[in-house]
Amino acid sequence: MVTNKLKFNKVNLNLIDEYSKRINSEFKDGKIGYFHLPKSDLSNLNELSEFSKKFSEFVVVGMGGSSLGIKAVFGLLENDKKVHFLDNLDICLCEKVLNSINFKKTLFFIISKSGTTIETITIFKFIIDKFSVKDFSKNFIFITDGDSNLEKFGLEHGIKTFNIPKNVGGRFSVLSAAGLVPFTCFGFDVKEILDGANACAREFFIEKNDNILQKAYHYTTHKSAKINVIFSYGSKFEYFNEWYIQLWAESLGKKREYKRLGLTPVALIGSKDQHSFLQLIMDGVKDKTVTFIKVKADTKEKSASNLSFKYLESCDFVNGFNMSEILNLQCDATMQAIINEGISVDSLELECLDEWHIGYLLYYYMLLTSVTGIMLNINTYNQPGVEIGKRLLKTLLIRG
Amino acid sequence: MVTNKLKFNKVNLNLIDEYSKRINSEFKDGKIGYFHLPKSDLSNLNELSEFSKKFSEFVVVGMGGSSLGIKAVFGLLENDKKVHFLDNLDICLCEKVLNSINFKKTLFFIISKSGTTIETITIFKFIIDKFSVKDFSKNFIFITDGDSNLEKFGLEHGIKTFNIPKNVGGRFSVLSAAGLVPFTCFGFDVKEILDGANACAREFFIEKNDNILQKAYHYTTHKSAKINVIFSYGSKFEYFNEWYIQLWAESLGKKREYKRLGLTPVALIGSKDQHSFLQLIMDGVKDKTVTFIKVKADTKEKSASNLSFKYLESCDFVNGFNMSEILNLQCDATMQAIINEGISVDSLELECLDEWHIGYLLYYYMLLTSVTGIMLNINTYNQPGVEIGKRLLKTLLIRG
Repeated sequence: MVTNKLKFNKVNLNLIDEYSKRINSEFKDGKIGYFHLPKSDLSNLNELSEFSKKFSEFVVVGMGGSSLGIKAVFGLLENDKKVHFLDNLDICLCEKVLNSINFKKTLFFIISKSGTTIETITIFKFIIDKFSVKDFSKNFIFITDGDSNLEKFGLEHGIKTFNIPKNVGGRFSVLSAAGLVPFTCFGFDVKEILDGANACAREFFIEKNDNILQKAYHYTTHKSAKINVIFSYGSKFEYFNEWYIQLWAESLGKKREYKRLGLTPVALIGSKDQHSFLQLIMDGVKDKTVTFIKVKADTKEKSASNLSFKYLESCDFVNGFNMSEILNLQCDATMQAIINEGISVDSLELECLDEWHIGYLLYYYMLLTSVTGIMLNINTYNQPGVEIGKRLLKTLLIRG
Repeated sequence: MVTNKLKFNKVNLNLIDEYSKRINSEFKDGKIGYFHLPKSDLSNLNELSEFSKKFSEFVVVGMGGSSLGIKAVFGLLENDKKVHFLDNLDICLCEKVLNSINFKKTLFFIISKSGTTIETITIFKFIIDKFSVKDFSKNFIFITDGDSNLEKFGLEHGIKTFNIPKNVGGRFSVLSAAGLVPFTCFGFDVKEILDGANACAREFFIEKNDNILQKAYHYTTHKSAKINVIFSYGSKFEYFNEWYIQLWAESLGKKREYKRLGLTPVALIGSKDQHSFLQLIMDGVKDKTVTFIKVKADTKEKSASNLSFKYLESCDFVNGFNMSEILNLQCDATMQAIINEGISVDSLELECLDEWHIGYLLYYYMLLTSVTGIMLNINTYNQPGVEIGKRLLKTLLIRG
């Protein structure tokens, strides 16, 4: 179960009714593909678990939405898989990862929606070069749009190739093949991930839980607070935080005609960042909302310590509690302190960190992003602003 | 050499003269300790290199400023040391790290300025418990304020204990024992780090390079842009980015009487985050400044690939260039695209990533923070806002 508690006032349903209709009609018209991914047919993944058993390590090559969702789930789920991410055109990163692996025992995922992401293809060619690969079909899997040039290349070389549906954008693709194919190979329960996502969809579209609408309405009407902080308690959320930043920033930072719109994501880890960004939230300009994310403490975990040392007695007040309990109480205390400052806060509590809850959380954030985009009256699903830099790069290189 | 180029207009020196006088008098009056750390006497570190040779792994236990600076330098410097960071009260993180080490061959740094940071002391006790440690003097080093309770405990148990000067705040402590002690044990050249920092101090205080003053003035007077983005090209900057976030947020988010002030840090990695946050900078609200940080490309690095594949020819335009060159050209292209949008930009180019340049960069950002704090007329060096949460935690636990 995921419990979302809004610590700010809800508005009258009339105010959000029009938006509710719009998101419901978007859901029905089928143009936005990610909505329906939780109902995907998984039969094409069946053979993968067997195939992937041949490998002891995995390397994911993908930029932005082609790796962030995979990293998020990989980070959140307790697992002992050796997975490396080549998500930057960085020679030190590439050398470090590729020098550490046993090539023959490694399965590579080359993921690019367009099929021609310059960083991804360059790293792919770098790998081919480095290991003098002759037969591409053995340990590469391609995930790309149907009909992309990468798919054509893959088919010609007998490479296992999976498609991201055309109407699913990169940053909304974690529940498509872009996520499910690697998850299956890592041994994660993809059915459970989709079930969790589906539960979130059902609560919103069928049971008409209005929290997401209320939250998006709050974010888009409180014009003084244009920074949306998530404060995730637990180091496992680090990559999830990165995924949220892309989703929020790239979806909501848009021009509408000549007007610039957008909300800025900030993502923190508790309790760690209580020693960092928190001071700015507490005493700085009130331009932020904060969402606290926490996971119920495991009661079976043993207490952190019951030791008491001379001179350090002032730290004994946590004795008898386990680390997860202390972490959650830190979350509660910080939340209360921020509420006391009059800052808009809500909390998301997950029963535990398993596939189901992660699927729910991912869908929750994609849905929140869609609804917020509708309220800002922008195109949530494109990214026109990053094209200019790509064109300039070509000019510089050709001139270079 | 570090080259800082401002791509926005400088103002007349009269406007910044008063601030220049104030920072110069702060430098001279000795109340702010970090200014003078580059001139530290290093003789007390001499015995450490020998002592640390007994260990093959290192664990740094510290929150906020007690670990972020160490992580930053560790991440930026090419090295093969096994260093783990316990920088969060997180049972998964602690178990994962502590289960992976050989206790007898591991040197632990317990770092807490106050000496009673609840997370740090709790993790310390957890370690003692887990490995049933009897003799604390063998593989622990304490770094804390003189006269703190942690120091007293350390001295009583014969633990090597080093002090952070009283007038050096946690987030400004990377060039004090809090950084230099672990750096010496890792085999880093601390003399070079301090020399680089000193070069930055000299440029500012003696050669009167006014870039930092101009930049801080720009940040504090362009009231529509309250978010300061650093866009660091290269995955090695990841931890440096975290260090910057704490330094900027915790120093500048302050109440002045009843007025809330502050600038919000955002830290990105290029080219990776061109596929994430960039869209928001390009098309979103113009509430951001951007600093591009890059490292000169190594001309000896071989080209990323000269392969050309049927279907993927559109990616061949980078053939013949090495990854670092492409990365830097991506930086240049993105910078140009952002300048074209009329956003305030500057760039920092480092000749290479060695100790000297890292020392320079750290000092540059601490100085920029100090000057910006002076211009905001706030206390840059305290963190009153985080105390309330700490008190609330105690109440919750005792009630719990």
